[in-house]
Amino acid sequence: MTGIAAADGLEVRLSFNQITADPYGMRDVVDACVQHGVKTISVWRHKVDELGLEATAGLIRDAGLGVSSLCRGGFFPAATEAEVASRHEDNVRALEEAATLGSPLLVLVCGPAPDKDLDRARQQVVEGIAALLPVAERLKVKIGIEPLHPVFAGDRSVIVTLAQANEIAECFPASLVGVVVDVYHVWWDPCVYDGIRRAADRILGFHVSDWLVPSPDPLMGRGLMGDGVIELRRLRKAVEAAGYFGPIEVEIFNRDVWAMPLDDLMTKVKERFVAHV
Amino acid sequence: MTGIAAADGLEVRLSFNQITADPYGMRDVVDACVQHGVKTISVWRHKVDELGLEATAGLIRDAGLGVSSLCRGGFFPAATEAEVASRHEDNVRALEEAATLGSPLLVLVCGPAPDKDLDRARQQVVEGIAALLPVAERLKVKIGIEPLHPVFAGDRSVIVTLAQANEIAECFPASLVGVVVDVYHVWWDPCVYDGIRRAADRILGFHVSDWLVPSPDPLMGRGLMGDGVIELRRLRKAVEAAGYFGPIEVEIFNRDVWAMPLDDLMTKVKERFVAHV
Repeated sequence: MTGIAAADGLEVRLSFNQITADPYGMRDVVDACVQHGVKTISVWRHKVDELGLEATAGLIRDAGLGVSSLCRGGFFPAATEAEVASRHEDNVRALEEAATLGSPLLVLVCGPAPDKDLDRARQQVVEGIAALLPVAERLKVKIGIEPLHPVFAGDRSVIVTLAQANEIAECFPASLVGVVVDVYHVWWDPCVYDGIRRAADRILGFHVSDWLVPSPDPLMGRGLMGDGVIELRRLRKAVEAAGYFGPIEVEIFNRDVWAMPLDDLMTKVKERFVAHV
Repeated sequence: MTGIAAADGLEVRLSFNQITADPYGMRDVVDACVQHGVKTISVWRHKVDELGLEATAGLIRDAGLGVSSLCRGGFFPAATEAEVASRHEDNVRALEEAATLGSPLLVLVCGPAPDKDLDRARQQVVEGIAALLPVAERLKVKIGIEPLHPVFAGDRSVIVTLAQANEIAECFPASLVGVVVDVYHVWWDPCVYDGIRRAADRILGFHVSDWLVPSPDPLMGRGLMGDGVIELRRLRKAVEAAGYFGPIEVEIFNRDVWAMPLDDLMTKVKERFVAHV
Protein backbone atom coordinates (compact mmCIF):
# COMPACT_ATOMS: atom_id res chain seq x y z
CA MET A 1 0.00 0.00 0.00
CA THR A 2 1.19 3.48 -0.65
CA GLY A 3 0.98 4.70 2.90
CA ILE A 4 -1.43 7.55 2.27
CA ALA A 5 -2.67 9.18 5.44
CA ALA A 6 -6.10 10.68 5.94
CA ALA A 7 -4.46 14.06 6.45
CA ASP A 8 -2.99 14.13 2.94
CA GLY A 9 -4.77 16.08 0.23
CA LEU A 10 -6.98 14.45 -2.33
CA GLU A 11 -4.66 14.80 -5.30
CA VAL A 12 -1.97 12.62 -3.79
CA ARG A 13 -4.47 9.80 -3.70
CA LEU A 14 -4.98 9.77 -7.47
CA SER A 15 -3.94 6.44 -8.94
CA PHE A 16 -3.83 6.28 -12.71
CA ASN A 17 -5.38 3.04 -13.94
CA GLN A 18 -3.46 2.40 -17.12
CA ILE A 19 -6.53 1.28 -19.07
CA THR A 20 -7.44 4.98 -19.11
CA ALA A 21 -4.54 5.35 -21.55
CA ASP A 22 -5.03 2.04 -23.30
CA PRO A 23 -3.30 2.95 -26.60
CA TYR A 24 -0.07 3.82 -24.76
CA GLY A 25 2.66 1.47 -23.66
CA MET A 26 3.83 0.85 -20.12
CA ARG A 27 6.89 3.12 -20.42
CA ASP A 28 4.80 6.01 -21.73
CA VAL A 29 2.28 5.71 -18.93
CA VAL A 30 4.92 5.43 -16.22
CA ASP A 31 6.75 8.48 -17.64
CA ALA A 32 3.53 10.47 -17.85
CA CYS A 33 2.69 9.67 -14.21
CA VAL A 34 6.12 10.85 -13.10
CA GLN A 35 5.93 14.03 -15.18
CA HIS A 36 2.48 14.89 -13.86
CA GLY A 37 3.26 14.09 -10.24
CA VAL A 38 0.91 11.11 -10.08
CA LYS A 39 2.28 8.84 -7.36
CA THR A 40 0.43 5.60 -8.00
CA ILE A 41 -0.68 3.47 -10.92
CA SER A 42 -2.89 0.48 -11.46
CA VAL A 43 -1.51 -2.12 -13.80
CA TRP A 44 -3.24 -4.47 -16.24
CA ARG A 45 -1.86 -7.95 -16.77
CA HIS A 46 -1.91 -7.87 -20.56
CA LYS A 47 0.14 -4.68 -20.42
CA VAL A 48 2.77 -6.35 -18.26
CA ASP A 49 3.43 -8.68 -21.17
CA GLU A 50 4.92 -5.79 -23.19
CA LEU A 51 8.19 -5.69 -21.24
CA GLY A 52 7.80 -8.81 -19.13
CA LEU A 53 7.06 -9.04 -15.43
CA GLU A 54 10.48 -8.35 -13.93
CA ALA A 55 11.27 -5.47 -16.27
CA THR A 56 7.85 -3.90 -15.59
CA ALA A 57 8.31 -4.23 -11.85
CA GLY A 58 11.77 -2.62 -12.15
CA LEU A 59 10.46 0.19 -14.35
CA ILE A 60 7.72 1.09 -11.88
CA ARG A 61 10.01 0.76 -8.86
CA ASP A 62 12.76 2.85 -10.44
CA ALA A 63 10.21 5.54 -11.30
CA GLY A 64 9.26 5.71 -7.63
CA LEU A 65 5.64 4.85 -8.31
CA GLY A 66 3.37 2.85 -6.05
CA VAL A 67 1.02 0.23 -7.45
CA SER A 68 -2.53 0.37 -6.15
CA SER A 69 -3.76 -2.81 -7.80
CA LEU A 70 -3.28 -5.40 -10.49
CA CYS A 71 -6.21 -5.91 -12.89
CA ARG A 72 -7.44 -8.54 -12.99
CA GLY A 73 -8.10 -12.01 -11.73
CA GLY A 74 -11.39 -13.84 -11.38
CA PHE A 75 -13.54 -15.45 -14.08
CA PHE A 76 -14.29 -18.36 -11.77
CA PRO A 77 -17.49 -19.94 -13.10
CA ALA A 78 -16.78 -22.65 -15.63
CA ALA A 79 -18.54 -25.63 -17.14
CA THR A 80 -15.92 -28.30 -16.39
CA GLU A 81 -13.55 -29.20 -13.58
CA ALA A 82 -10.64 -28.88 -15.98
CA GLU A 83 -11.66 -25.33 -16.82
CA VAL A 84 -12.12 -24.48 -13.12
CA ALA A 85 -8.58 -25.77 -12.48
CA SER A 86 -7.17 -23.77 -15.36
CA ARG A 87 -8.82 -20.57 -14.11
CA HIS A 88 -7.42 -21.26 -10.65
CA GLU A 89 -3.91 -21.64 -12.02
CA ASP A 90 -4.24 -18.38 -13.90
CA ASN A 91 -5.43 -16.63 -10.73
CA VAL A 92 -2.45 -18.01 -8.81
CA ARG A 93 -0.19 -16.53 -11.50
CA ALA A 94 -2.03 -13.23 -11.16
CA LEU A 95 -1.38 -13.18 -7.41
CA GLU A 96 2.29 -13.94 -8.03
CA GLU A 97 2.49 -11.12 -10.58
CA ALA A 98 0.83 -8.75 -8.11
CA ALA A 99 3.41 -9.65 -5.47
CA THR A 100 6.30 -9.12 -7.90
CA LEU A 101 4.90 -5.75 -8.98
CA GLY A 102 4.53 -4.67 -5.37
CA SER A 103 0.76 -4.49 -5.69
CA PRO A 104 -1.08 -5.06 -2.41
CA LEU A 105 -4.24 -5.99 -4.28
CA LEU A 106 -5.54 -8.24 -7.04
CA VAL A 107 -8.86 -6.99 -8.40
CA LEU A 108 -11.35 -9.69 -9.27
CA VAL A 109 -13.81 -9.55 -12.13
CA CYS A 110 -15.68 -12.64 -11.13
CA GLY A 111 -16.86 -13.83 -14.54
CA PRO A 112 -20.18 -14.79 -16.17
CA ALA A 113 -22.04 -18.07 -15.83
CA PRO A 114 -21.13 -20.74 -18.39
CA ASP A 115 -24.86 -21.42 -18.79
CA LYS A 116 -28.11 -19.97 -17.41
CA ASP A 117 -27.53 -21.12 -13.84
CA LEU A 118 -26.65 -17.96 -11.91
CA ASP A 119 -26.90 -19.63 -8.50
CA ARG A 120 -24.31 -22.25 -9.39
CA ALA A 121 -22.03 -19.67 -10.99
CA ARG A 122 -22.20 -17.51 -7.88
CA GLN A 123 -21.32 -20.54 -5.77
CA GLN A 124 -18.32 -21.17 -8.03
CA VAL A 125 -17.12 -17.64 -7.31
CA VAL A 126 -17.11 -18.38 -3.57
CA GLU A 127 -15.32 -21.68 -4.15
CA GLY A 128 -12.80 -20.04 -6.47
CA ILE A 129 -11.91 -17.35 -3.95
CA ALA A 130 -11.63 -19.92 -1.16
CA ALA A 131 -9.11 -21.88 -3.22
CA LEU A 132 -6.93 -18.78 -3.64
CA LEU A 133 -6.68 -17.87 0.04
CA PRO A 134 -3.54 -19.82 0.95
CA VAL A 135 -1.72 -18.28 -2.01
CA ALA A 136 -2.94 -14.76 -1.18
CA GLU A 137 -1.83 -15.20 2.42
CA ARG A 138 1.60 -16.51 1.48
CA LEU A 139 2.19 -13.70 -1.05
CA LYS A 140 0.64 -10.97 1.12
CA VAL A 141 -1.64 -9.86 -1.70
CA LYS A 142 -5.26 -9.10 -0.88
CA ILE A 143 -8.17 -10.15 -3.05
CA GLY A 144 -10.69 -7.45 -3.96
CA ILE A 145 -14.12 -8.48 -5.22
CA GLU A 146 -15.35 -5.83 -7.64
CA PRO A 147 -19.07 -5.99 -8.29
CA LEU A 148 -19.75 -4.98 -11.89
CA HIS A 149 -22.76 -3.08 -13.20
CA PRO A 150 -25.67 -5.46 -13.89
CA VAL A 151 -25.38 -4.67 -17.60
CA PHE A 152 -22.36 -7.00 -17.48
CA ALA A 153 -24.20 -9.85 -15.73
CA GLY A 154 -24.40 -11.87 -18.94
CA ASP A 155 -20.84 -11.63 -20.13
CA ARG A 156 -18.46 -10.45 -17.38
CA SER A 157 -19.63 -10.92 -13.81
CA VAL A 158 -22.35 -12.70 -11.91
CA ILE A 159 -21.41 -10.46 -8.97
CA VAL A 160 -23.39 -7.29 -9.62
CA THR A 161 -24.07 -5.52 -6.32
CA LEU A 162 -22.00 -4.37 -3.40
CA ALA A 163 -24.34 -6.28 -1.06
CA GLN A 164 -23.42 -9.47 -2.89
CA ALA A 165 -19.69 -8.68 -2.84
CA ASN A 166 -19.88 -7.93 0.87
CA GLU A 167 -21.70 -11.16 1.55
CA ILE A 168 -19.00 -13.16 -0.21
CA ALA A 169 -16.12 -11.20 1.31
CA GLU A 170 -17.54 -11.78 4.78
CA CYS A 171 -17.10 -15.53 4.30
CA PHE A 172 -13.35 -14.93 4.50
CA PRO A 173 -10.83 -13.14 6.74
CA ALA A 174 -10.84 -9.35 6.32
CA SER A 175 -7.05 -9.56 6.21
CA LEU A 176 -7.31 -11.37 2.86
CA VAL A 177 -10.58 -10.58 1.09
CA GLY A 178 -12.42 -7.30 0.61
CA VAL A 179 -14.36 -5.33 -1.97
CA VAL A 180 -13.54 -2.75 -4.62
CA VAL A 181 -16.04 0.08 -5.05
CA ASP A 182 -16.16 1.41 -8.62
CA VAL A 183 -18.65 4.26 -8.92
CA TYR A 184 -19.54 3.30 -12.51
CA HIS A 185 -20.67 -0.11 -11.36
CA VAL A 186 -22.55 0.82 -8.18
CA TRP A 187 -23.92 4.37 -8.53
CA TRP A 188 -27.44 3.28 -9.57
CA ASP A 189 -27.93 1.02 -6.53
CA PRO A 190 -30.49 2.24 -3.96
CA CYS A 191 -28.49 0.26 -1.38
CA VAL A 192 -25.03 1.55 -2.29
CA TYR A 193 -24.53 3.66 0.83
CA ASP A 194 -25.67 0.79 3.05
CA GLY A 195 -23.23 -1.41 1.17
CA ILE A 196 -20.35 1.01 1.70
CA ARG A 197 -21.10 1.28 5.41
CA ARG A 198 -21.28 -2.48 5.70
CA ALA A 199 -18.01 -2.94 3.80
CA ALA A 200 -16.14 -0.66 6.26
CA ASP A 201 -12.71 -2.19 6.86
CA ARG A 202 -13.02 -4.37 3.79
CA ILE A 203 -12.92 -1.59 1.19
CA LEU A 204 -9.70 -2.24 -0.71
CA GLY A 205 -10.13 0.14 -3.61
CA PHE A 206 -12.21 3.02 -4.93
CA HIS A 207 -12.51 3.68 -8.68
CA VAL A 208 -13.88 6.78 -10.35
CA SER A 209 -15.18 7.72 -13.79
CA ASP A 210 -18.69 8.87 -14.74
CA TRP A 211 -21.94 7.58 -16.22
CA LEU A 212 -22.83 9.55 -19.33
CA VAL A 213 -26.43 10.27 -20.31
CA PRO A 214 -27.32 8.98 -22.77
CA SER A 215 -24.91 6.11 -22.22
CA PRO A 216 -23.08 5.69 -25.53
CA ASP A 217 -22.01 2.11 -24.82
CA PRO A 218 -21.96 0.30 -21.47
CA LEU A 219 -18.47 -1.10 -21.99
CA MET A 220 -16.64 1.63 -23.87
CA GLY A 221 -18.66 4.69 -22.96
CA ARG A 222 -17.48 5.71 -19.50
CA GLY A 223 -17.10 9.41 -19.00
CA LEU A 224 -14.46 11.60 -17.45
CA MET A 225 -15.40 12.68 -13.95
CA GLY A 226 -17.88 15.54 -14.16
CA ASP A 227 -19.27 14.64 -17.58
CA GLY A 228 -22.00 12.39 -16.23
CA VAL A 229 -24.60 11.97 -13.50
CA ILE A 230 -22.77 10.15 -10.70
CA GLU A 231 -22.65 11.80 -7.27
CA LEU A 232 -18.89 11.33 -7.13
CA ARG A 233 -18.12 13.44 -4.10
CA ARG A 234 -20.91 11.90 -2.06
CA LEU A 235 -19.60 8.44 -2.84
CA ARG A 236 -16.02 9.44 -2.03
CA LYS A 237 -17.14 10.90 1.29
CA ALA A 238 -19.06 7.69 1.99
CA VAL A 239 -16.05 5.43 1.47
CA GLU A 240 -14.01 7.77 3.65
CA ALA A 241 -16.68 7.65 6.36
CA ALA A 242 -16.32 3.87 6.13
CA GLY A 243 -12.60 4.25 6.77
CA TYR A 244 -11.09 4.10 3.29
CA PHE A 245 -8.36 6.66 2.63
CA GLY A 246 -6.32 4.65 0.13
CA PRO A 247 -5.63 5.32 -3.55
CA ILE A 248 -8.48 6.43 -5.79
CA GLU A 249 -8.12 4.92 -9.23
CA VAL A 250 -9.23 6.78 -12.33
CA GLU A 251 -10.38 4.01 -14.67
CA ILE A 252 -11.99 5.06 -17.92
CA PHE A 253 -12.82 2.87 -20.90
CA ASN A 254 -13.70 5.35 -23.62
CA ARG A 255 -12.42 5.59 -27.19
CA ASP A 256 -12.64 9.39 -27.20
CA VAL A 257 -10.52 9.55 -24.05
CA TRP A 258 -8.11 7.06 -25.56
CA ALA A 259 -7.74 9.26 -28.64
CA MET A 260 -6.32 12.14 -26.57
CA PRO A 261 -2.57 12.86 -26.52
CA LEU A 262 -1.28 11.35 -23.27
CA ASP A 263 -0.05 14.65 -21.90
CA ASP A 264 -3.45 16.31 -22.40
CA LEU A 265 -5.18 13.28 -20.96
CA MET A 266 -3.12 13.36 -17.76
CA THR A 267 -3.75 17.08 -17.34
CA LYS A 268 -7.49 16.62 -17.86
CA VAL A 269 -7.68 13.63 -15.51
CA LYS A 270 -5.99 15.57 -12.72
CA GLU A 271 -8.21 18.62 -13.21
CA ARG A 272 -11.38 16.59 -13.20
CA PHE A 273 -10.21 14.53 -10.24
CA VAL A 274 -9.72 17.57 -8.05
CA ALA A 275 -12.86 19.31 -9.27
CA HIS A 276 -15.33 16.45 -9.05
CA VAL A 277 -14.14 13.56 -6.88
CA MET B 1 -58.59 -8.38 -16.06
CA THR B 2 -58.98 -11.25 -18.46
CA GLY B 3 -60.26 -13.78 -15.97
CA ILE B 4 -57.57 -16.36 -16.51
CA ALA B 5 -57.69 -19.20 -14.02
CA ALA B 6 -54.67 -21.06 -12.68
CA ALA B 7 -56.04 -24.22 -14.26
CA ASP B 8 -55.80 -22.79 -17.78
CA GLY B 9 -52.84 -23.67 -19.98
CA LEU B 10 -49.88 -21.40 -20.43
CA GLU B 11 -50.64 -20.37 -24.00
CA VAL B 12 -53.92 -18.70 -23.10
CA ARG B 13 -51.98 -16.35 -20.83
CA LEU B 14 -49.86 -14.94 -23.66
CA SER B 15 -50.46 -11.21 -24.03
CA PHE B 16 -48.93 -9.58 -27.08
CA ASN B 17 -47.30 -6.29 -26.14
CA GLN B 18 -47.67 -4.29 -29.32
CA ILE B 19 -44.18 -2.79 -29.10
CA THR B 20 -43.00 -6.26 -30.17
CA ALA B 21 -44.48 -5.39 -33.57
CA ASP B 22 -43.59 -1.72 -33.50
CA PRO B 23 -43.59 -1.11 -37.27
CA TYR B 24 -47.20 -2.33 -37.56
CA GLY B 25 -50.36 -0.34 -36.95
CA MET B 26 -53.02 -1.02 -34.35
CA ARG B 27 -55.42 -2.69 -36.80
CA ASP B 28 -52.69 -5.03 -38.07
CA VAL B 29 -51.69 -6.09 -34.59
CA VAL B 30 -55.28 -6.63 -33.44
CA ASP B 31 -56.00 -8.69 -36.57
CA ALA B 32 -52.83 -10.74 -36.09
CA CYS B 33 -53.76 -11.50 -32.48
CA VAL B 34 -57.22 -12.69 -33.55
CA GLN B 35 -55.84 -14.81 -36.38
CA HIS B 36 -53.26 -16.44 -34.12
CA GLY B 37 -55.61 -17.04 -31.21
CA VAL B 38 -53.86 -14.59 -28.90
CA LYS B 39 -56.50 -13.43 -26.43
CA THR B 40 -54.86 -10.38 -24.87
CA ILE B 41 -52.78 -7.41 -25.93
CA SER B 42 -50.85 -4.67 -24.22
CA VAL B 43 -51.31 -1.24 -25.73
CA TRP B 44 -48.88 1.70 -26.01
CA ARG B 45 -50.22 5.23 -25.72
CA HIS B 46 -48.52 6.61 -28.81
CA LYS B 47 -50.11 3.81 -30.84
CA VAL B 48 -53.55 4.76 -29.57
CA ASP B 49 -53.07 8.08 -31.34
CA GLU B 50 -53.24 6.35 -34.74
CA LEU B 51 -57.01 5.82 -34.64
CA GLY B 52 -57.87 7.82 -31.56
CA LEU B 53 -58.87 6.54 -28.15
CA GLU B 54 -62.53 5.64 -28.69
CA ALA B 55 -61.92 3.99 -32.04
CA THR B 56 -59.04 1.97 -30.61
CA ALA B 57 -61.12 0.86 -27.66
CA GLY B 58 -63.91 -0.16 -30.04
CA LEU B 59 -61.52 -2.03 -32.34
CA ILE B 60 -60.10 -4.06 -29.48
CA ARG B 61 -63.50 -4.72 -27.91
CA ASP B 62 -65.06 -5.77 -31.21
CA ALA B 63 -62.16 -8.12 -31.83
CA GLY B 64 -62.91 -9.80 -28.51
CA LEU B 65 -59.44 -9.09 -27.13
CA GLY B 66 -58.60 -8.36 -23.53
CA VAL B 67 -56.13 -5.63 -22.60
CA SER B 68 -53.50 -6.58 -20.05
CA SER B 69 -51.97 -3.14 -19.60
CA LEU B 70 -51.47 0.31 -20.99
CA CYS B 71 -47.85 1.44 -21.47
CA ARG B 72 -46.95 3.78 -19.97
CA GLY B 73 -47.21 6.41 -17.30
CA GLY B 74 -44.60 7.62 -14.86
CA PHE B 75 -41.64 9.94 -15.48
CA PHE B 76 -42.29 11.64 -12.16
CA PRO B 77 -38.97 13.31 -11.22
CA ALA B 78 -38.73 16.83 -12.53
CA ALA B 79 -36.79 20.00 -11.82
CA THR B 80 -39.70 22.39 -11.34
CA GLU B 81 -43.14 22.32 -9.74
CA ALA B 82 -44.66 23.25 -13.10
CA GLU B 83 -43.04 20.23 -14.69
CA VAL B 84 -44.19 17.98 -11.84
CA ALA B 85 -47.74 19.24 -12.38
CA SER B 86 -47.55 18.67 -16.11
CA ARG B 87 -46.33 15.09 -15.60
CA HIS B 88 -49.17 14.52 -13.15
CA GLU B 89 -51.74 15.72 -15.66
CA ASP B 90 -50.31 13.44 -18.29
CA ASN B 91 -50.49 10.51 -15.89
CA VAL B 92 -54.11 11.31 -15.11
CA ARG B 93 -54.81 11.21 -18.86
CA ALA B 94 -53.01 7.87 -19.06
CA LEU B 95 -55.23 6.43 -16.32
CA GLU B 96 -58.32 7.71 -18.14
CA GLU B 97 -57.10 6.15 -21.38
CA ALA B 98 -56.48 2.86 -19.58
CA ALA B 99 -60.03 2.92 -18.23
CA THR B 100 -61.50 3.64 -21.66
CA LEU B 101 -59.46 0.85 -23.23
CA GLY B 102 -60.61 -1.61 -20.58
CA SER B 103 -57.08 -2.00 -19.24
CA PRO B 104 -56.96 -2.93 -15.56
CA LEU B 105 -53.38 -1.64 -15.31
CA LEU B 106 -51.23 1.37 -16.11
CA VAL B 107 -47.53 0.44 -16.23
CA LEU B 108 -45.16 3.02 -14.78
CA VAL B 109 -41.71 3.76 -16.08
CA CYS B 110 -40.77 6.03 -13.24
CA GLY B 111 -38.32 8.33 -15.03
CA PRO B 112 -34.74 9.52 -14.51
CA ALA B 113 -33.53 12.23 -12.14
CA PRO B 114 -33.48 15.75 -13.58
CA ASP B 115 -30.02 16.19 -12.01
CA LYS B 116 -27.60 14.00 -10.02
CA ASP B 117 -29.79 13.71 -6.93
CA LEU B 118 -31.11 10.16 -7.00
CA ASP B 119 -32.56 10.33 -3.48
CA ARG B 120 -34.72 13.33 -4.30
CA ALA B 121 -35.81 11.82 -7.62
CA ARG B 122 -36.83 8.62 -5.85
CA GLN B 123 -38.82 10.65 -3.36
CA GLN B 124 -40.57 12.39 -6.25
CA VAL B 125 -41.62 8.99 -7.58
CA VAL B 126 -43.34 8.22 -4.27
CA GLU B 127 -45.00 11.64 -4.25
CA GLY B 128 -46.07 11.28 -7.87
CA ILE B 129 -47.72 7.92 -7.26
CA ALA B 130 -49.45 9.22 -4.13
CA ALA B 131 -50.98 12.04 -6.14
CA LEU B 132 -52.46 9.57 -8.64
CA LEU B 133 -54.21 7.32 -6.14
CA PRO B 134 -57.61 9.06 -6.02
CA VAL B 135 -57.77 8.97 -9.82
CA ALA B 136 -56.72 5.32 -9.97
CA GLU B 137 -59.34 4.43 -7.37
CA ARG B 138 -62.11 6.30 -9.14
CA LEU B 139 -61.25 4.77 -12.52
CA LYS B 140 -60.58 1.28 -11.14
CA VAL B 141 -57.20 1.15 -12.87
CA LYS B 142 -54.26 -0.23 -10.91
CA ILE B 143 -50.81 1.31 -10.98
CA GLY B 144 -47.89 -1.05 -11.65
CA ILE B 145 -44.38 0.06 -10.76
CA GLU B 146 -41.96 -1.55 -13.21
CA PRO B 147 -38.36 -1.50 -12.03
CA LEU B 148 -36.08 -1.09 -15.04
CA HIS B 149 -32.64 -2.61 -15.51
CA PRO B 150 -29.97 -0.43 -13.86
CA VAL B 151 -28.53 0.29 -17.30
CA PHE B 152 -31.49 2.68 -17.63
CA ALA B 153 -30.89 4.44 -14.30
CA GLY B 154 -29.48 7.52 -16.02
CA ASP B 155 -32.12 8.09 -18.66
CA ARG B 156 -35.32 6.18 -17.94
CA SER B 157 -35.90 5.10 -14.35
CA VAL B 158 -34.47 5.74 -10.92
CA ILE B 159 -36.40 2.64 -9.81
CA VAL B 160 -34.06 -0.21 -10.69
CA THR B 161 -34.73 -3.16 -8.41
CA LEU B 162 -37.75 -5.17 -7.40
CA ALA B 163 -36.88 -4.53 -3.74
CA GLN B 164 -37.19 -0.82 -4.38
CA ALA B 165 -40.46 -1.19 -6.31
CA ASN B 166 -41.86 -3.35 -3.50
CA GLU B 167 -40.84 -0.82 -0.89
CA ILE B 168 -42.66 1.96 -2.73
CA ALA B 169 -45.72 -0.16 -3.53
CA GLU B 170 -46.02 -1.12 0.14
CA CYS B 171 -46.55 2.55 1.01
CA PHE B 172 -49.94 2.30 -0.71
CA PRO B 173 -53.00 0.01 -0.69
CA ALA B 174 -52.47 -3.30 -2.51
CA SER B 175 -55.82 -2.71 -4.19
CA LEU B 176 -54.29 0.22 -6.08
CA VAL B 177 -50.50 -0.12 -6.40
CA GLY B 178 -48.34 -3.11 -7.24
CA VAL B 179 -45.28 -4.11 -9.26
CA VAL B 180 -44.62 -5.36 -12.75
CA VAL B 181 -41.94 -8.03 -13.09
CA ASP B 182 -40.14 -7.87 -16.43
CA VAL B 183 -37.53 -10.60 -16.70
CA TYR B 184 -35.24 -8.43 -18.83
CA HIS B 185 -35.05 -5.85 -16.08
CA VAL B 186 -34.67 -8.12 -13.04
CA TRP B 187 -32.97 -11.37 -14.10
CA TRP B 188 -29.47 -10.30 -12.96
CA ASP B 189 -30.57 -9.44 -9.41
CA PRO B 190 -29.31 -11.79 -6.68
CA CYS B 191 -32.41 -10.80 -4.69
CA VAL B 192 -34.97 -11.30 -7.46
CA TYR B 193 -36.60 -14.41 -5.98
CA ASP B 194 -36.83 -12.74 -2.57
CA GLY B 195 -38.39 -9.76 -4.31
CA ILE B 196 -40.97 -11.91 -6.09
CA ARG B 197 -41.91 -13.67 -2.86
CA ARG B 198 -42.24 -10.35 -1.09
CA ALA B 199 -44.35 -8.88 -3.90
CA ALA B 200 -46.88 -11.74 -3.61
CA ASP B 201 -50.36 -10.25 -4.02
CA ARG B 202 -48.93 -7.09 -5.54
CA ILE B 203 -47.63 -8.63 -8.77
CA LEU B 204 -49.73 -6.97 -11.47
CA GLY B 205 -47.84 -8.06 -14.55
CA PHE B 206 -45.15 -10.42 -15.82
CA HIS B 207 -43.19 -9.59 -18.99
CA VAL B 208 -40.94 -11.91 -20.94
CA SER B 209 -38.17 -11.57 -23.52
CA ASP B 210 -34.50 -12.61 -23.18
CA TRP B 211 -31.06 -11.14 -22.46
CA LEU B 212 -28.71 -11.83 -25.35
CA VAL B 213 -24.98 -12.46 -24.84
CA PRO B 214 -23.23 -10.39 -25.92
CA SER B 215 -25.91 -7.77 -25.43
CA PRO B 216 -26.15 -5.94 -28.77
CA ASP B 217 -27.74 -2.81 -27.26
CA PRO B 218 -29.43 -2.47 -23.88
CA LEU B 219 -32.45 -0.66 -25.30
CA MET B 220 -32.99 -2.24 -28.68
CA GLY B 221 -31.30 -5.59 -28.23
CA ARG B 222 -33.78 -7.76 -26.35
CA GLY B 223 -33.98 -11.32 -27.54
CA LEU B 224 -36.83 -13.66 -28.31
CA MET B 225 -37.43 -16.08 -25.46
CA GLY B 226 -34.86 -18.87 -25.66
CA ASP B 227 -32.20 -16.83 -27.46
CA GLY B 228 -30.56 -15.54 -24.28
CA VAL B 229 -29.49 -16.47 -20.79
CA ILE B 230 -32.50 -15.71 -18.59
CA GLU B 231 -33.95 -18.55 -16.53
CA LEU B 232 -37.43 -17.80 -17.88
CA ARG B 233 -39.25 -20.84 -16.59
CA ARG B 234 -37.80 -20.49 -13.11
CA LEU B 235 -38.95 -16.88 -12.97
CA ARG B 236 -42.42 -17.78 -14.29
CA LYS B 237 -42.75 -20.52 -11.66
CA ALA B 238 -41.63 -18.03 -9.00
CA VAL B 239 -44.30 -15.46 -9.87
CA GLU B 240 -46.86 -18.27 -9.92
CA ALA B 241 -45.69 -19.47 -6.51
CA ALA B 242 -46.25 -15.87 -5.37
CA GLY B 243 -49.83 -16.10 -6.64
CA TYR B 244 -49.67 -14.49 -10.07
CA PHE B 245 -51.56 -16.33 -12.79
CA GLY B 246 -52.47 -13.31 -14.94
CA PRO B 247 -51.42 -12.43 -18.46
CA ILE B 248 -47.78 -12.86 -19.47
CA GLU B 249 -46.72 -10.09 -21.84
CA VAL B 250 -44.21 -10.71 -24.59
CA GLU B 251 -42.43 -7.36 -24.90
CA ILE B 252 -39.44 -7.23 -27.25
CA PHE B 253 -37.59 -4.16 -28.44
CA ASN B 254 -35.39 -5.48 -31.23
CA ARG B 255 -34.98 -4.19 -34.78
CA ASP B 256 -34.39 -7.70 -36.17
CA VAL B 257 -37.64 -8.86 -34.59
CA TRP B 258 -39.38 -5.77 -35.91
CA ALA B 259 -38.13 -6.55 -39.42
CA MET B 260 -40.05 -9.86 -39.49
CA PRO B 261 -43.35 -10.17 -41.36
CA LEU B 262 -46.08 -9.92 -38.73
CA ASP B 263 -47.48 -13.36 -39.43
CA ASP B 264 -44.07 -15.01 -38.99
CA LEU B 265 -43.43 -12.96 -35.88
CA MET B 266 -46.68 -14.06 -34.22
CA THR B 267 -45.94 -17.70 -35.05
CA LYS B 268 -42.43 -17.44 -33.63
CA VAL B 269 -43.56 -15.62 -30.49
CA LYS B 270 -46.13 -18.31 -29.74
CA GLU B 271 -43.65 -21.14 -30.35
CA ARG B 272 -41.00 -19.56 -28.14
CA PHE B 273 -43.51 -18.73 -25.45
CA VAL B 274 -44.66 -22.31 -25.07
CA ALA B 275 -41.15 -23.75 -25.36
CA HIS B 276 -39.30 -21.41 -22.99
CA VAL B 277 -41.61 -19.52 -20.62
